[in-house]
Amino acid sequence: MIDYEVLQRLSETLTSRRNADPSSSYTAQLLAKGPDSILKKIGEETAELIMAGKEGNRLHIVRESADVLFHMMVLLVHAGLSIDDVMVEMRRREGISGIEEKKARTVSK
Amino acid sequence: MIDYEVLQRLSETLTSRRNADPSSSYTAQLLAKGPDSILKKIGEETAELIMAGKEGNRLHIVRESADVLFHMMVLLVHAGLSIDDVMVEMRRREGISGIEEKKARTVSK
Amino acid sequence: MIDYEVLQRLSETLTSRRNADPSSSYTAQLLAKGPDSILKKIGEETAELIMAGKEGNRLHIVRESADVLFHMMVLLVHAGLSIDDVMVEMRRREGISGIEEKKARTVSK
Amino acid sequence: MIDYEVLQRLSETLTSRRNADPSSSYTAQLLAKGPDSILKKIGEETAELIMAGKEGNRLHIVRESADVLFHMMVLLVHAGLSIDDVMVEMRRREGISGIEEKKARTVSK
Repeated sequence: MIDYEVLQRLSETLTSRRNADPSSSYTAQLLAKGPDSILKKIGEETAELIMAGKEGNRLHIVRESADVLFHMMVLLVHAGLSIDDVMVEMRRREGISGIEEKKARTVSK
Repeated sequence: MIDYEVLQRLSETLTSRRNADPSSSYTAQLLAKGPDSILKKIGEETAELIMAGKEGNRLHIVRESADVLFHMMVLLVHAGLSIDDVMVEMRRREGISGIEEKKARTVSK
Repeated sequence: MIDYEVLQRLSETLTSRRNADPSSSYTAQLLAKGPDSILKKIGEETAELIMAGKEGNRLHIVRESADVLFHMMVLLVHAGLSIDDVMVEMRRREGISGIEEKKARTVSK
Repeated sequence: MIDYEVLQRLSETLTSRRNADPSSSYTAQLLAKGPDSILKKIGEETAELIMAGKEGNRLHIVRESADVLFHMMVLLVHAGLSIDDVMVEMRRREGISGIEEKKARTVSK
């Protein structure tokens, strides 16, 4: 049984770091630096995920996916959101087939 | 109560699309095209997440996060993995403080 | 003798497409769609450059570099700038050693 | 008259750093670290270019374009190539209209 609640626990930890002393943790530091630093990290981690995908190294793919997901969660918390909001959005999309969903996205954007 | 199991259901759907007729869904199409197409989409969706983060539009941040997460899950399935492996990795990292984790990552890379 | 003026000619062509009928060329189309579409293409082409770099395929590295440079030039033209402004910036940086330059950038950002 | 030869001079400097002592300059350091470090920097600098493009700040667009171009040139040198090869490729594409070029690229990939 996979423990998806690790996301909820991490989300709560990240939220609690929002007003923490920047020297207390990597996350508090990143949140204090602001959105540009977080987005830069997302760009960097995505580059690493693309490299891992290209080399087909499964251990790297898992680690870099976790890195991208972690920094995405920091961005969400910085914006006053959480991974829960993404789950709600994914729940909303359930039942819409991919091809229909893609069309819907094209229209809505 | 947030429904994290949407990830598990989506993961199962994606896995079932691995050998499906490419014309049957967006995911089957993307999986049939192979890793380069998936990684290109990850690059594109990350660019959109960075733009959403920069404009600070919360609705866009949520939607683009869902898009990045969705395509990351397609990459995982293509590599014979799933989001469960990422959850296990995140569980493994729990309890390691961010700053220690960052040091650990630096050493391990 | 390498013909760097291809950049100047391309820059002039791109500038002339700014108010052209979108159906007349790929560039006119992209310029009409606006910055988000251009930035999304930059994200996508960069993902392809990263893949080419990772596989070490020299032909792909050259083609994807040209694609990134092309779309960067479209972004510049969209912003009322041109590759000439980038040349001026690179000229300004000449003589500053990399390590000093990096320090300077860190301070200025 | 714009000085495009700044590209040639920079290209020669970068090439001369290929076997230089890593502690001697930022470029020598980056070249010694290898392709993954260079590609990671390209991902990071592209994220910054996307942010600059999104905010529409012309000074930032010019600086971040120069940063992306610089790191692309480091990648080229690392692969035994140079910006000259990209100029040759862009010269080859001249005269092919954007829409035809896009079709040609789609076929060739």
